[in-house]
Amino acid sequence: MAYFDSASSLPLHPVARQALIAALDEGWADPARLHREGRRARLLLDAARETAAEAAGCRPDELAFTSSGTRAVHDGIAGALAGRRRAGRHLLVSAVEHSCVLQAAAAHTADGGTVEEIGVDRTGRVDAGRYAGALRADTALACLQSANHEVGTEQPVAEVAEACRAAGVPLLVDAAQSLAWGPVAGGWSLLTASAHKWGGPPGVGLLAVRKGVRCAPRGPADERESGRAPGFPNIPAVLAAAASLRAVRQEAEEEAARLRALVDRIRSRVPELVPDVEVVGDPARRLPHLVTFSCLYVDGEALLHGLDRRGFSVSSGSSCTASTLVPSHVLRAMGVLSEGNVRVSLPAGTAAEDIERFLAVLPETVAEVRGRLGAPLPGDEATAPAGAGRGAAGTASGAAPEEPAPDGPAPEGAGTDGAAAAEQSPKAPAAAGTEAEEPALTVDALGRRCPVPVIELAKVIGEVPDGRVVAVLADDEAARLDIPAWCAMRDQEYVGERPAERGSVYLVRRRA
Amino acid sequence: MAYFDSASSLPLHPVARQALIAALDEGWADPARLHREGRRARLLLDAARETAAEAAGCRPDELAFTSSGTRAVHDGIAGALAGRRRAGRHLLVSAVEHSCVLQAAAAHTADGGTVEEIGVDRTGRVDAGRYAGALRADTALACLQSANHEVGTEQPVAEVAEACRAAGVPLLVDAAQSLAWGPVAGGWSLLTASAHKWGGPPGVGLLAVRKGVRCAPRGPADERESGRAPGFPNIPAVLAAAASLRAVRQEAEEEAARLRALVDRIRSRVPELVPDVEVVGDPARRLPHLVTFSCLYVDGEALLHGLDRRGFSVSSGSSCTASTLVPSHVLRAMGVLSEGNVRVSLPAGTAAEDIERFLAVLPETVAEVRGRLGAPLPGDEATAPAGAGRGAAGTASGAAPEEPAPDGPAPEGAGTDGAAAAEQSPKAPAAAGTEAEEPALTVDALGRRCPVPVIELAKVIGEVPDGRVVAVLADDEAARLDIPAWCAMRDQEYVGERPAERGSVYLVRRRA
Repeated sequence: MAYFDSASSLPLHPVARQALIAALDEGWADPARLHREGRRARLLLDAARETAAEAAGCRPDELAFTSSGTRAVHDGIAGALAGRRRAGRHLLVSAVEHSCVLQAAAAHTADGGTVEEIGVDRTGRVDAGRYAGALRADTALACLQSANHEVGTEQPVAEVAEACRAAGVPLLVDAAQSLAWGPVAGGWSLLTASAHKWGGPPGVGLLAVRKGVRCAPRGPADERESGRAPGFPNIPAVLAAAASLRAVRQEAEEEAARLRALVDRIRSRVPELVPDVEVVGDPARRLPHLVTFSCLYVDGEALLHGLDRRGFSVSSGSSCTASTLVPSHVLRAMGVLSEGNVRVSLPAGTAAEDIERFLAVLPETVAEVRGRLGAPLPGDEATAPAGAGRGAAGTASGAAPEEPAPDGPAPEGAGTDGAAAAEQSPKAPAAAGTEAEEPALTVDALGRRCPVPVIELAKVIGEVPDGRVVAVLADDEAARLDIPAWCAMRDQEYVGERPAERGSVYLVRRRA
Repeated sequence: MAYFDSASSLPLHPVARQALIAALDEGWADPARLHREGRRARLLLDAARETAAEAAGCRPDELAFTSSGTRAVHDGIAGALAGRRRAGRHLLVSAVEHSCVLQAAAAHTADGGTVEEIGVDRTGRVDAGRYAGALRADTALACLQSANHEVGTEQPVAEVAEACRAAGVPLLVDAAQSLAWGPVAGGWSLLTASAHKWGGPPGVGLLAVRKGVRCAPRGPADERESGRAPGFPNIPAVLAAAASLRAVRQEAEEEAARLRALVDRIRSRVPELVPDVEVVGDPARRLPHLVTFSCLYVDGEALLHGLDRRGFSVSSGSSCTASTLVPSHVLRAMGVLSEGNVRVSLPAGTAAEDIERFLAVLPETVAEVRGRLGAPLPGDEATAPAGAGRGAAGTASGAAPEEPAPDGPAPEGAGTDGAAAAEQSPKAPAAAGTEAEEPALTVDALGRRCPVPVIELAKVIGEVPDGRVVAVLADDEAARLDIPAWCAMRDQEYVGERPAERGSVYLVRRRA
């Protein structure tokens, strides 16, 4: 058994466990009370704040404990926006922030504010100059994660902080993924983090607000945590969080070097062992413990279950594993393949043998999923010369193989009735504008989930003459990302997308 | 040592402790993940929800776990108000709700809504008919606690719920203080509670929303807890909360009977042992474990410290113990004495001997505080016939004794420079309206904290002729409550209050 999903959550660090159990006996009382139990609780809370503030790189009176990292982000963003209301209502975020940042941004939009998302390159990295260029006179707040939670890419926080400082705009840094490894460099104004990401208990977030930065609490307030986090404080958890942050920091440098080497091993070996894999994220400027790759023609959920059966716990940004049926917004912003996506995030102490075992079972697991989906084998693909494949150009391929029964409950809208079918061009919708060319073949993948539309495309592309267009009709959101990504991997020309009565039509021109 | 502040917080119940420690190993993963650790966490979360829902008297899918009772109240009130926005923006609350309910109401007012507070009688109880009569066509939500947290009085929730049902208005019941003792009777629409009040861990609140009741989440949302509580769930704490609620319920009936007898003992013995004590709250319709009394001429903070030194931890609603310098809004709404206020709330398992020890030390502790404040002794009070006291009528009393140094830091605005001084009438501000009568004597207690203004009044009342008026000039908020309460206890006539340049003037007519 190996748990490779530390970016989601970690078991309690032994130091956190010890501190938590001790504080259950010492820190259960209300620190606002005058009796001895209350005074003892207050002392513990003060001590936890000093420890956590030192690790976060701020003063104790700048740090509030919240009930989660999400709460810290929501309240930090809403509070800073309210505090800067006179400056304006423009909010800058990167396109690859954690979903809780984007949810706070959506709430700002719903409240009449303006949100601007700064895109990233194919490694998931924000360009500092581009970010700085988007700062406006009415920018109330800028948000930038320290490092991405899905692909590990570090962001240029120090440069962006300097630009924000020059522009007089506060910068909120979501440090949830990086705080275990070290303090955030640069002149941030607000910082948020989450204890269960570093082996602290759930139920503890950090919200640091530099002196002089306006952060007006929203909603009902009380006197707890400088008015920034109402409700009874969770002192045992806060103590455990602070103690474990200090503990992981002491091991951070050594452990980072060790895990970095293990991740490098995965980054180099996976593409050698598994055909048609795209390893994503910045290879160097990245978190030490995290690597993400996507496997062509693979259903992410089936892959996760296959790995789980073999004793490996990972997570995925594939749409087929999420209840929303939308692929990871991070992968989408990067413009990389999302199907068969696997995020490996190693907890401290991961052994090299675990990595070797993982590399040993990954190829068979991927092959198994591809086999069940009837995915084309390398060399047996329809991108082979037209006429040499399984069908003549212009001939509709047969019905797609049956989709395997999903291991989990089938998400709504994932039709299992209609198998994808390739149809001859006369039935395709009329192309418009620059895509006025009549497709030679149309694949109907309506109601089919990722990765089926891409598999169906791969099966028939060889059946059209070189230079002709295949149209894929699909309503799975992942197709928008994965069909262009497939074209890039297979050196086919992605022509574009146009709306259809249901879903969209994706046009691909064959290059022999 | 005896901890008598269970209404603030309780140490972890042994069952909670056991469940928490077990769940630290089993329930740390993200229940939204597909791997085995995630699935195990999800099973535990589901089990906790079933257990807690059964105890709360609702369906599991009606119950969300929040990060605190305060959060449950804030989100329940804001969500229900938003869900009923079309009906109107009128919010009904009782005047003795927990401060977090009143803070949510204040946020509603700040947002342009209307809040109406329903008063209580001298026992702290809402009149159900009066509450029902305040329901309007545009009432969006009604809030009523199951039982009061400061004086223990039970509220007529079932009757009010029935009136709300008839009016089509949802009723939110804050059950924080009573849920340990049993489910809330009656047809509530929303219910909130807090685990650390029943021996569960901090960091867990309950928010139950009946099917069909609109409760639209405010602010950023995610898919956790049916969209009602964003952020990573605290599964170990939630499991411990549910397990301990079930455990305390199993002991509730027997323990309630036992503690009720101990509280009855305190209720009857304290007034016999300590002169000038007012026991407040409903003597019968009350929580089993909680009793509150106030001691004339006593500084609440000093009394708490005196009891603490003798090994008893209690809390107080006196203004002199709170950083805000405002006496408990509950005592104020009841119109009872607030000085020297003590709330005794017994944890399960409190021994009868602890109560006897408490009763043994209370009289000397109260006498000690009174002595340090120079409070009049019974029989030596100035309410003795005029001319028989320490001074002739119309003569200013000497300077008040020095205020003792507070054990804690002196709250802002609590002047220590000016001792209270009684002055002859010419310097008193001119009376107006029905109080046009010239006071015979004015006591200047500006800058003096509770209970000094009352003590100074007591010292000089005997110096004015029967039927004449003493004016007390005071800026301590508690005077507004405590001077009328003193008049009732001493059978003197409280004439009324009028504003002064600083503070207020309180007028008392001597009855010999």
